[in-house]
Amino acid sequence: MGQDQPVSGAEAVIASLAECGVTACFANPGTSEMHLVGALDREPRIRSVLCLFEGVATGAADGFARMEGSPALTLLHLGPGYLNGGANIHNARRAHTPMINLIGDHAVSHRSLDAPLASDIAGLAGPNSRWMKSADRVQDAGRLAAEAYVASFGPPPGPVSLIMPADTAWSRGSSVFRPSHRPRPAQTPDGAIEDAARRIRNGARAAILVNGSALKEEGLRACARLQAAGVRVITDTFVPRQARGAGRFAPERLPYFAEAAIKSLEGLDLLLLAGTRAPVAFFAYPDTPGRLIPEGVSAASLGGPETDSAATVARLAEALGAPPPVAPPASGAPEFDASKLNPHSVGALLARRIPEGTVVCDDGVTASLPVFMAMESAAQHDWLALTGGAIGMGLPLAVGASVARPASKVVCLSGDGAGMYTNQALWTMAREGLDVISIVFVNNAYRILNIEWARTGAGEAGQTAHDMLSLGAPEIDWPQMAKGMGVPGVSVETTEQFDTALAHALEEPGPHLIAVRIP
Amino acid sequence: MGQDQPVSGAEAVIASLAECGVTACFANPGTSEMHLVGALDREPRIRSVLCLFEGVATGAADGFARMEGSPALTLLHLGPGYLNGGANIHNARRAHTPMINLIGDHAVSHRSLDAPLASDIAGLAGPNSRWMKSADRVQDAGRLAAEAYVASFGPPPGPVSLIMPADTAWSRGSSVFRPSHRPRPAQTPDGAIEDAARRIRNGARAAILVNGSALKEEGLRACARLQAAGVRVITDTFVPRQARGAGRFAPERLPYFAEAAIKSLEGLDLLLLAGTRAPVAFFAYPDTPGRLIPEGVSAASLGGPETDSAATVARLAEALGAPPPVAPPASGAPEFDASKLNPHSVGALLARRIPEGTVVCDDGVTASLPVFMAMESAAQHDWLALTGGAIGMGLPLAVGASVARPASKVVCLSGDGAGMYTNQALWTMAREGLDVISIVFVNNAYRILNIEWARTGAGEAGQTAHDMLSLGAPEIDWPQMAKGMGVPGVSVETTEQFDTALAHALEEPGPHLIAVRIP
Repeated sequence: MGQDQPVSGAEAVIASLAECGVTACFANPGTSEMHLVGALDREPRIRSVLCLFEGVATGAADGFARMEGSPALTLLHLGPGYLNGGANIHNARRAHTPMINLIGDHAVSHRSLDAPLASDIAGLAGPNSRWMKSADRVQDAGRLAAEAYVASFGPPPGPVSLIMPADTAWSRGSSVFRPSHRPRPAQTPDGAIEDAARRIRNGARAAILVNGSALKEEGLRACARLQAAGVRVITDTFVPRQARGAGRFAPERLPYFAEAAIKSLEGLDLLLLAGTRAPVAFFAYPDTPGRLIPEGVSAASLGGPETDSAATVARLAEALGAPPPVAPPASGAPEFDASKLNPHSVGALLARRIPEGTVVCDDGVTASLPVFMAMESAAQHDWLALTGGAIGMGLPLAVGASVARPASKVVCLSGDGAGMYTNQALWTMAREGLDVISIVFVNNAYRILNIEWARTGAGEAGQTAHDMLSLGAPEIDWPQMAKGMGVPGVSVETTEQFDTALAHALEEPGPHLIAVRIP
Repeated sequence: MGQDQPVSGAEAVIASLAECGVTACFANPGTSEMHLVGALDREPRIRSVLCLFEGVATGAADGFARMEGSPALTLLHLGPGYLNGGANIHNARRAHTPMINLIGDHAVSHRSLDAPLASDIAGLAGPNSRWMKSADRVQDAGRLAAEAYVASFGPPPGPVSLIMPADTAWSRGSSVFRPSHRPRPAQTPDGAIEDAARRIRNGARAAILVNGSALKEEGLRACARLQAAGVRVITDTFVPRQARGAGRFAPERLPYFAEAAIKSLEGLDLLLLAGTRAPVAFFAYPDTPGRLIPEGVSAASLGGPETDSAATVARLAEALGAPPPVAPPASGAPEFDASKLNPHSVGALLARRIPEGTVVCDDGVTASLPVFMAMESAAQHDWLALTGGAIGMGLPLAVGASVARPASKVVCLSGDGAGMYTNQALWTMAREGLDVISIVFVNNAYRILNIEWARTGAGEAGQTAHDMLSLGAPEIDWPQMAKGMGVPGVSVETTEQFDTALAHALEEPGPHLIAVRIP
């Protein structure tokens, strides 16, 4: 739907996105985006948040949309700005997160001059964009913004790129648009669900691998019914968002390492897939299969990430005549050894303290799984995992989740190696006063690589190899670095110290950092 | 030249590059690069330097090659690793820096599985690569590494990408190669030089815009001869490397802003171009031309970046019968107001203190030009500028320049906004004990954008616009952040404090940071 009053291209884009319902922009602008900043300045419906590196902006947009269900906007400065934000756009693509990347470009007339900042933006942004257009004519600007919004929902949802030449932004002659519709996820055909139900009724030993909406509150209730009907429910190893905590059904989680994943699926006749695809190994290793479904197990898709997996599991539960959901028994607070500060004890202490509605952003790498397991009995919370394997997502994701959920506490779990990639996120937490507790696991190493080194058979490690995997020498003083960016921080070495720091951070509003020194 | 002993693909690549003469690798490896790390571990001819973010690795490779004249290697982790390093690869492309980006990929058999870290690496890396191949067969690995090395020299030189699947790296059956030749820059045809000389002899009011090798020691002597023969010598605004300081010819520098650049070229009949292309505005602005050569000025190319501009200016000087070079008169230390700490006084104090052979890495944005001008009379030094406009290059560039010149002092000039992009470089400076003095100009703003805001006519700035251009609230405490990464730092507010800090930093080996608080 077009409106009549002609406005500048920048105003048309920003106002159209506001009409669509966009409420947050994570920005790192440059000269070519000044008119877009001006339009944001005059648009009260969109909260503009400055990030000091584009990877923070894109990771934050991912976190925002995972909680909100609709896209945030990023504002990026030409090809290099896109590149800086690219790794977290990759992660968002893997999370099927709607995201609108607004990439400022030179004026159309300036492009052919090959100025220093010119590059092939469409070439760079294409591979990780579900949709990409350039608003080369001012009259198209508002319409393309609305189109970008719609396209970000897919299905499946994902990052889209709208390239915005500077002269389109500053010229007048565009209009504000509102999108005609907001796409909904696809529905799995009845036949596929009935076929699966029939095979299970006929005695197939079955499991269902789920991801997507099936892992939210409502979907999990249907998952619990499936489990009660004899179908093992397993999640992908890394999921965009999962509702967790006391009273909620906790599916199995597919192991990370290929051999363990394959073993966990052995003995099945049938592996159903809902909201995901056939599982594959994260990396290839010599003499290890890449496909994780064992020989003899038949796989059947009930729809990939483009579908509403919550509806799929609910319909399958109905088709199986599964009993209504019962709340799982309370599992009680996990045991831990108070003399050992490690990811498990951190998880156990978090489980005791976090308030309901907490959002956990997980870039904890080797520390993640023990915390994840220990927090099963915590107050109800959401867990947001690293979906694309590009570390450096946690702190930015927490920024975005907190902007989306200002009334909630956000806990970010980060490895020290991962946290260094996008440490600038701490500054945005301080500026915006976000209630984020960043827990950095300091083991002075790319610990995962010490494990992978052996698994890939790379041989005996000498000094150079050791140095390439080690973050010691010098040790990073995380509290000092955080204070430099305006975030109070402490370093802890005992469970008591951690618990005290956690209690303080939960009580005092605003961002906090806790550096957890682990062996 | 192939050798006979079959080795693994990883060993073939690393040994072939060492045979070529590569001596430094700036690495941020992941699982798919473990065998490459293993090969580096066993290769004493290559110094491996760990960077905690890929943008540091690529910026360092740029700085290394600008000083060394031959490429360094980077080690990047799949598509996201390339993206993280991409902005400084863009800058290197604009500097015509040879650089070999070795991008680990999934095993060939694993690619089709679309694992979480999979992406279209060739699509992402293509736009900023002068050459790109994927070593999909182990027998090709060594040969392709040598080919990548050769390709990085162009002409013109630039970044190249060698994609390295994990199974190529770990499989045996490759050989070590040495390149057949190292390409040399092109030579400008005699006719073009003679034609230019004739026009100048016939009375054309001429200037020559130079970049590339003409700005090194020898080339500058020829530039001085041209100037003595009545040809104005002007450099591009941003140059990869320029020899400067007392006793060296100091060409004019083309102004940054379009209207000033055009004005500076008015009144000419002829603008010659050597080692560069016709100048264009950095950005487009409403109602401002993009091409900087005024109406009525005739432009004539004596060869672009693919040519040896030092040879070109020398041949033109000969053709003009220009007198032999005379050393320029000593200009004396610049005057400055000791009561005002600002970029000019910082430059003047640097000019008094830096030792001969210092390398200046400039990402100082609005602070750069006053320092540049004030340092004309300093001891002889090299100046490395930001060529591609993607801020966040300075600190990484300094890492690489220092690795290439361990006996020299390196001074990095950085804006506070620019420095935040790649602050992780400080950690590598600490780890490697690099003699780098990082001078961060703290004005708590993207100052350049405050200027550009007005120039682009973006209107009246409200609170949101102000916030998007401001780095205050909270102020970044640079010394604290630097200390967190192992670099001692101080904040200074007077010229005396700066001078004391500078003297100390020059005296004490290893990295230092000086935060210069300016209005």
